[in-house]
Amino acid sequence: MLETLISYDLSKLPEEQDIKPHNRWHPDIPMAVTVKPGAEFRLECFDWTGGQIGNNDCADDVRDVDLTKVHYLTGPVGVEGAEPGDLLVVDILDVAPVAEDPWGFNGIFARENGGGLLTEFFPEARKSIWDFKGIYTSSRHIPGVEFEGIMHPGLIGCLPSKELLAEWNKRESGLVATDPDRVPPLATLPYEETALMGQMTGSEAKAAGAEGARTVPPREHGGNCDIKNLSKGSRIYFPVYVKGAGLSVGDLHFSQGDGEITFCGAIEMAGSIELRVQIIKDGVKKYGIKNPVFKPSKVDPKYRDYLIFEGISVDHTGKQFYMDTTVAYQQACLNAIEYMKKFGYTGEQALSILGTAPVEGHISGIVDIPNACATLWLPTEIFDFDMMPNNDGPKILVPEGPDMTKTSDK
Amino acid sequence: MLETLISYDLSKLPEEQDIKPHNRWHPDIPMAVTVKPGAEFRLECFDWTGGQIGNNDCADDVRDVDLTKVHYLTGPVGVEGAEPGDLLVVDILDVAPVAEDPWGFNGIFARENGGGLLTEFFPEARKSIWDFKGIYTSSRHIPGVEFEGIMHPGLIGCLPSKELLAEWNKRESGLVATDPDRVPPLATLPYEETALMGQMTGSEAKAAGAEGARTVPPREHGGNCDIKNLSKGSRIYFPVYVKGAGLSVGDLHFSQGDGEITFCGAIEMAGSIELRVQIIKDGVKKYGIKNPVFKPSKVDPKYRDYLIFEGISVDHTGKQFYMDTTVAYQQACLNAIEYMKKFGYTGEQALSILGTAPVEGHISGIVDIPNACATLWLPTEIFDFDMMPNNDGPKILVPEGPDMTKTSDK
Amino acid sequence: MLETLISYDLSKLPEEQDIKPHNRWHPDIPMAVTVKPGAEFRLECFDWTGGQIGNNDCADDVRDVDLTKVHYLTGPVGVEGAEPGDLLVVDILDVAPVAEDPWGFNGIFARENGGGLLTEFFPEARKSIWDFKGIYTSSRHIPGVEFEGIMHPGLIGCLPSKELLAEWNKRESGLVATDPDRVPPLATLPYEETALMGQMTGSEAKAAGAEGARTVPPREHGGNCDIKNLSKGSRIYFPVYVKGAGLSVGDLHFSQGDGEITFCGAIEMAGSIELRVQIIKDGVKKYGIKNPVFKPSKVDPKYRDYLIFEGISVDHTGKQFYMDTTVAYQQACLNAIEYMKKFGYTGEQALSILGTAPVEGHISGIVDIPNACATLWLPTEIFDFDMMPNNDGPKILVPEGPDMTKTSDK
Amino acid sequence: MLETLISYDLSKLPEEQDIKPHNRWHPDIPMAVTVKPGAEFRLECFDWTGGQIGNNDCADDVRDVDLTKVHYLTGPVGVEGAEPGDLLVVDILDVAPVAEDPWGFNGIFARENGGGLLTEFFPEARKSIWDFKGIYTSSRHIPGVEFEGIMHPGLIGCLPSKELLAEWNKRESGLVATDPDRVPPLATLPYEETALMGQMTGSEAKAAGAEGARTVPPREHGGNCDIKNLSKGSRIYFPVYVKGAGLSVGDLHFSQGDGEITFCGAIEMAGSIELRVQIIKDGVKKYGIKNPVFKPSKVDPKYRDYLIFEGISVDHTGKQFYMDTTVAYQQACLNAIEYMKKFGYTGEQALSILGTAPVEGHISGIVDIPNACATLWLPTEIFDFDMMPNNDGPKILVPEGPDMTKTSDK
Repeated sequence: MLETLISYDLSKLPEEQDIKPHNRWHPDIPMAVTVKPGAEFRLECFDWTGGQIGNNDCADDVRDVDLTKVHYLTGPVGVEGAEPGDLLVVDILDVAPVAEDPWGFNGIFARENGGGLLTEFFPEARKSIWDFKGIYTSSRHIPGVEFEGIMHPGLIGCLPSKELLAEWNKRESGLVATDPDRVPPLATLPYEETALMGQMTGSEAKAAGAEGARTVPPREHGGNCDIKNLSKGSRIYFPVYVKGAGLSVGDLHFSQGDGEITFCGAIEMAGSIELRVQIIKDGVKKYGIKNPVFKPSKVDPKYRDYLIFEGISVDHTGKQFYMDTTVAYQQACLNAIEYMKKFGYTGEQALSILGTAPVEGHISGIVDIPNACATLWLPTEIFDFDMMPNNDGPKILVPEGPDMTKTSDK
Repeated sequence: MLETLISYDLSKLPEEQDIKPHNRWHPDIPMAVTVKPGAEFRLECFDWTGGQIGNNDCADDVRDVDLTKVHYLTGPVGVEGAEPGDLLVVDILDVAPVAEDPWGFNGIFARENGGGLLTEFFPEARKSIWDFKGIYTSSRHIPGVEFEGIMHPGLIGCLPSKELLAEWNKRESGLVATDPDRVPPLATLPYEETALMGQMTGSEAKAAGAEGARTVPPREHGGNCDIKNLSKGSRIYFPVYVKGAGLSVGDLHFSQGDGEITFCGAIEMAGSIELRVQIIKDGVKKYGIKNPVFKPSKVDPKYRDYLIFEGISVDHTGKQFYMDTTVAYQQACLNAIEYMKKFGYTGEQALSILGTAPVEGHISGIVDIPNACATLWLPTEIFDFDMMPNNDGPKILVPEGPDMTKTSDK
Repeated sequence: MLETLISYDLSKLPEEQDIKPHNRWHPDIPMAVTVKPGAEFRLECFDWTGGQIGNNDCADDVRDVDLTKVHYLTGPVGVEGAEPGDLLVVDILDVAPVAEDPWGFNGIFARENGGGLLTEFFPEARKSIWDFKGIYTSSRHIPGVEFEGIMHPGLIGCLPSKELLAEWNKRESGLVATDPDRVPPLATLPYEETALMGQMTGSEAKAAGAEGARTVPPREHGGNCDIKNLSKGSRIYFPVYVKGAGLSVGDLHFSQGDGEITFCGAIEMAGSIELRVQIIKDGVKKYGIKNPVFKPSKVDPKYRDYLIFEGISVDHTGKQFYMDTTVAYQQACLNAIEYMKKFGYTGEQALSILGTAPVEGHISGIVDIPNACATLWLPTEIFDFDMMPNNDGPKILVPEGPDMTKTSDK
Repeated sequence: MLETLISYDLSKLPEEQDIKPHNRWHPDIPMAVTVKPGAEFRLECFDWTGGQIGNNDCADDVRDVDLTKVHYLTGPVGVEGAEPGDLLVVDILDVAPVAEDPWGFNGIFARENGGGLLTEFFPEARKSIWDFKGIYTSSRHIPGVEFEGIMHPGLIGCLPSKELLAEWNKRESGLVATDPDRVPPLATLPYEETALMGQMTGSEAKAAGAEGARTVPPREHGGNCDIKNLSKGSRIYFPVYVKGAGLSVGDLHFSQGDGEITFCGAIEMAGSIELRVQIIKDGVKKYGIKNPVFKPSKVDPKYRDYLIFEGISVDHTGKQFYMDTTVAYQQACLNAIEYMKKFGYTGEQALSILGTAPVEGHISGIVDIPNACATLWLPTEIFDFDMMPNNDGPKILVPEGPDMTKTSDK
């Protein structure tokens, strides 16, 4: 493996590390390390909750996650010569779990914690634990599935400029203001108390923490995109907004389905990432770049056989929406869950499969008013039984008993 | 090729054919032909406009399309023994253009005609003509691109039951009622005047035409899904709602990008389709099927190299939307268009490429409030020049001059 | 489809056509048609036997094929401006069977007719007929398999120069001279009597026919390579040896396994091919080209799941060969045949599957003395039953009864 | 990572390890460890030379390799319940280099050391060193190429029975006897002096060492197949010949081209492998298995764009061979080397690329007498420049200077 520039002692808290991570976006966060263009290096990463979730059979920790103390990011990595307007070319050379402790978790978030795409149908906290065996993973809580991981960082991007940060804060607080009492709120606004600003200290850190953008949503710089194809073997072109670029990364996933529909989220893990960085001078203007662009990996697992579920923008009550792709994908997911239940899975298990396995979500038809059409591609090869339709009907081959872990009060 | 069950004389109008197509959905439309389970056969199809568009250099016909006279469907094909609750298993054995006249068209719809996903940015009618050379296509209006087609029907499905039709009409008229004066309307409601009801005649046809569902949106039975992966080589499982199933098909595409974002639409063509039909008795209940499910094809063109554009649910004015995947995909499309313009394309040409080439649209992250994240995958191999970012910046290799055809008044 | 430059009346003999094909290679064969660089056009082709094989249930015609009257090639197509030393760039835009009569055949050649790779084990003539249903094929003689075709010409190349022809004749007659009485002979030498030299007539044709190279083996110019991946969608770069290039093509296959091990051969068919031709001036020297080079197609059927058989260069009697890849592949084929027989196939059926389905043959290890190692990749998805090993052992699902057709005297 | 059952101290010699590896095949070698069916575990492995090659710029060590002291295999791993006639199902869960020292080597063997497929053309010892950066590798001795590894063991298989061992020794000594004075010999016969027989000691080890089969060739049990697709993610079914199966593995490769044509060999490395083992009772007979069969991996790097070189069984002097696939592949390799030289590579560099990169070697046509036809598929995406033919001719983009390392006397 490549030289490790930032390493963590995972038995300690994020704020106790020698080189502290950061959990907010702010232009003034100082570079944790600096490299030259062409550098190849390794960074260690916390899991997205900073260690709040345990490898056990109780979902209390998922229910109780403090969402203001998540996304502890490794970095920022400064790149010599990078200036605003450049493109930072990042090759993801590898992503790996912690070698001595190869496991991850997937959680269904309770409604009060934000929920996910299908919170209305699965309102309670649940958890599944996933063991890693080389390139494969399986869960003691969801029998009958095993698959190759498509390892990637859920969150990666460069520091925003002051102007960009201001724009984020303006538009997101504007949204919250449209329904200020909503629980959960429409967006997560700056919150100083739990902000960890990397190597900043004292009043400077306090001031930056008070205006630093939360890490939850993806934004122009990339950030928490949760795009499963930003995987090992991909190449990403990031806009640079501050001198030195300031690349930060975290929220590693062993695998994820398109949409990350359970919210908590993919198969979440601590681990490491290996990167190479290069610069295209003035690339933002040359190529008209607004958000990051990227090339996919050659080593993502390749499936041939999918069962594909359609969904349209009419919800489960029959309510007609106008060209709403989110509703359409929600319906495609529900259709897939109903199908999997016929083979013996509980709804929660089926949901967790959609959140973790390399499921594809396609925007299929988006102009035929009033119905958007989305498709969910479920790779059939992840199951250790034949799950295609046939004349005999589904055989219930999923053993009864194992299920997603509940909270202790259920 | 297989035995042709229904053929058309394309020099005549749809209503002048021996076996008339239909352009509305209604349970009482009589079977045009009937086959046994296991049958393999060929059907001819009109292009989606029924011949309203010409192979010429003027977009007037795109501007003037009468949208109540489209989607002339071949069928219904009755299948012996099929009953409500069964699944009709349909193998698409082949899709082909008219051998003697191998061309198609792509149009950008004017706003007044319904527009597409990006009507706000491209409000005027435009047209490009695509020539087919075996498995490839290219356009005299858009230099620098040539690609393999992914031939498929935009529209395929079984006749609805009376109950299902009633539900469609109820929910869609309900939507229109929320903004009844909108131009264009929020949905297309039944319209008797231009209804062609297959072999029905007289008052019976008039009555059915007055309540028959328009063919525009995809619905539970499939219909106008415009899913590019319902391609030759795929297998589809359709819910059956009436005795004999009544499978109808039309709106053939030589190729389409995910979303069919130009609305008019993909590369549209007249041609033929070869099918095999089988039945899974009581499959709807056995497998919990609501919308069709399908298996993808092994012969869809396989691209390895994509440039992928991200979009988030903040629109071009900076307005923040809440988890709106449609806005996110719109932004990803705009980002791709800006990029292609750097190589010399006009915006309209770039848009047409996104509508016609085998572009993938993914629902990537859909839980990180308030921003949905969508990605548009542009296959780089369709271009006859290198369009990846590099240090030298884009070279303008697209020859000036050729452009999408305009209307005669521009 | 594209403009047809050469068409045949398949109810007549090759020598009765208006534009006669040729069945020998000679520099003096006049161009049948001439096109400009960039031209896109369509050619019709005989099946490789020129119509000697019928769609029936008797293998007499396979046994009795006159091998001096085969490979009737369409062409030569002259390309304006092409000169010796250039590369002719050929895009295969499409390959198709005869639309009105979509079938093909696969034969096992009897030993006296040349046999194939496994003649020792399958010495008698056999035949299977394959029906085409769009992109798929299946055979009434081999139940349980259906697959997508990978359509390609078995034979394509440019006319040789006088010098190259002389070299071919010298080396091949030299080989025959090492064992002149062998039956069958070690190579097929010029044979005037059945030579058809295109548009040449009289004494000129007679003279050319007496020295024209037979079409059986692949040679420097390409020729009868039987490479299944010269398929529709591929691009080939051919060396040019005579002014005008003189591209000829024939021996169309609906599908073939690597090696074409049954000799007669793939799924053989009459049909048509669509081509585009361009020139790279002086390309042979610029790129150091000796044999043709090519790029594969994007639309070849893509399989994910294979069962792969190994073979080493020890034959079935235990005899040790030194680094003989042909023996190794032979063993891999025999291993696959034994495996398939466990599911109910006869040896001849299994052999025919290896000759026709898109089977891959890899040269795996070729340096570990004394054993070469070859692998045969059998796509499992062509079978309509599960043929992977499992604890229950193979279930015989192949219906008894249908078998390869024999000759009338067996 | 999984529990490590056998680990090595690479700073010590193989014979100095606690659990000694073995470098001969013999039924009496005792199990090094024993596991239950279903077990998942990790094994460490020497590089194939047992550490004879250094990460330096001199090829003396390649020239001087002692070939009787290679292939130190980790194992045998006993599997409870496995008996002769069973199939041992082995999942390769992961393959990895030594984390702290991520490099490998590729050597061209001198003729006196056995040479490779092209020894006649490249008779001298050469070496290139390859650095690993996550999933990628590149060499300071061969600029312009970087590629994803396809990690696999070159050598894996179960212990032979007494009978099988006797058969190996008989047939291989028979071959040597046909030309007993040949240098190098036609096969490598048992050689007691340098035999390391695992945990056997004393006279027992001596006796077994005197008859133990050398590890060079692949045989019925698998062994040194050097099949690049026995990669992480593949599943292999091995015949079992002794009680407990006795699975041994070694000779790890970071990457290899089909054929391993340089002999020394692929990109060779020390490292580790993670495995899962299961049993199919009586599987050899049930499925008619002679050599191992396997399923390929889903995570092998997927290339789309190849330049494919043809070769026929006429050698570079024009000599005609009869259906010799080895000669045909040799010619395809030489054709590829000539092509690469046009871009600035030395012949040795080009040869090393063919030996190391994920090059495919296909047996294409093998029945068209007298010429076998083989194809070499060179993935174009491994080059950091465009290497396809075009009108401008090749641009020499490979920097001069770096070359394969020579021996100190050249």
